Amino acid sequence: MGLPGGALAAAEAAADLAGAAIRPLFRSALLVEAKGDASPVTEADRAAEQAMRGLLRERFPDHGILGEEFGPERADAEWLWVLDPIDGTRAFVTGRPLFGTLIGLLHRGRPVLGLIDQPGTGERWTGVAGEQTRFRSPMGGTPRCRPCAGMAEAELSCSSPDIFDAGTRPGFERLRAAARRVTWGGDCYAYGLVALGLVDVVAEAGMHPWDWAALVPVLEGAGGRVTGWDGEALTLEGDGRVLAVGDPALLPEAVALLRG
Amino acid sequence: MGLPGGALAAAEAAADLAGAAIRPLFRSALLVEAKGDASPVTEADRAAEQAMRGLLRERFPDHGILGEEFGPERADAEWLWVLDPIDGTRAFVTGRPLFGTLIGLLHRGRPVLGLIDQPGTGERWTGVAGEQTRFRSPMGGTPRCRPCAGMAEAELSCSSPDIFDAGTRPGFERLRAAARRVTWGGDCYAYGLVALGLVDVVAEAGMHPWDWAALVPVLEGAGGRVTGWDGEALTLEGDGRVLAVGDPALLPEAVALLRG
Repeated sequence: MGLPGGALAAAEAAADLAGAAIRPLFRSALLVEAKGDASPVTEADRAAEQAMRGLLRERFPDHGILGEEFGPERADAEWLWVLDPIDGTRAFVTGRPLFGTLIGLLHRGRPVLGLIDQPGTGERWTGVAGEQTRFRSPMGGTPRCRPCAGMAEAELSCSSPDIFDAGTRPGFERLRAAARRVTWGGDCYAYGLVALGLVDVVAEAGMHPWDWAALVPVLEGAGGRVTGWDGEALTLEGDGRVLAVGDPALLPEAVALLRG
Repeated sequence: MGLPGGALAAAEAAADLAGAAIRPLFRSALLVEAKGDASPVTEADRAAEQAMRGLLRERFPDHGILGEEFGPERADAEWLWVLDPIDGTRAFVTGRPLFGTLIGLLHRGRPVLGLIDQPGTGERWTGVAGEQTRFRSPMGGTPRCRPCAGMAEAELSCSSPDIFDAGTRPGFERLRAAARRVTWGGDCYAYGLVALGLVDVVAEAGMHPWDWAALVPVLEGAGGRVTGWDGEALTLEGDGRVLAVGDPALLPEAVALLRG
């Protein structure tokens, strides 16, 4: 099943609108004065999501919309847009250009279109189910995951050691102990690096649908996989535990480690 | 005491040479195939440092040079250049654009000139003792540290929780517990963010002179301070523990927490 006509162009236009709403705040005097208080970011977040919702609502009045900042609209529609204007609030607040705008489109719960857009660096990953992922960047990179023979060779990435709780930490620690190395930080950017063949595994917890919906088509279109910690497809009703691998052959070993 | 004539221009030219040597490898197929093995990076590191050394040796035959990759040259000279072609090897290997080239100049052990150059993002911080720090970036930012009333309001940053050992972890954990929040990752970039007023404190251990020499003039010229964990000026013979604060008034509290 193909995308609805105009869906890809709408996603790109929505990402442009979000970037235009977010970029003026990045590293601004307002943010410096806020001293780590995220409320100015919340305002930019809300403005960006409103802009995206307005565009999508106008072009696809029958589609549903699920976003981080506002309530769901027609969440039971066949096609559901899933939006996160600023993924990586901590990165944004501290001036790191690794935060991103995430736009996903689900068809009956299955992610079929995903954009990871970096308003800071000007980078954009675009994934469509069944198609090769595209990537534009002033810094280069090829959207193709790399092979990885096993966790002992895997470059692992995770936003922060602080995202785990008593239920998820033991599993992550087993995965980390088995990995060649871990690098911290990155939010959605780390998943983009899996799609560039530079990171092999990302495992995180506490993720909402707007954190992962866009990632699935981007990584799958580059040869990778994004699943729950059980190795199964992510669902809107899931437990928020996300596992991404560049080489699908890594999945059984990673799942076994996370399960323990 | 001013800089030697041409020192600033030489530092800028050296950073340009390093960037030209490093940039082609970033996210290249060679790096993807290396699968986290840093040896291709070591080659770029060495090529970049050789290029910088050649330029500095030719322009300042009496100056000394200390770098990460090769032995010291005239390390007892009055003026000593201190070079790190790729600070943040882990960031570089995993495709994050936060790695940087560091160029410092010491006069009788005191840092008087520093460049933090980001070959990935095109950003550059330039610090000269007694002058206002300059910053160029396609993403904005103003090189001025912000006030911070105490650690309870401080945005703390650190490259990784894994850089501490039994001797340094307790001190860092006290600092972290007192801070408003911690963000992981960034290497030299985190210090640059202190100079932009977006991060308040960075504390790290295991640092070599080439990791910190360039940071001192950059942060001091933006209103901040870079010291040891004892609050005293860093020296070539020091213990590798580095503390950076955007607001010098934070120093006593941070030092007390690190000391315990």
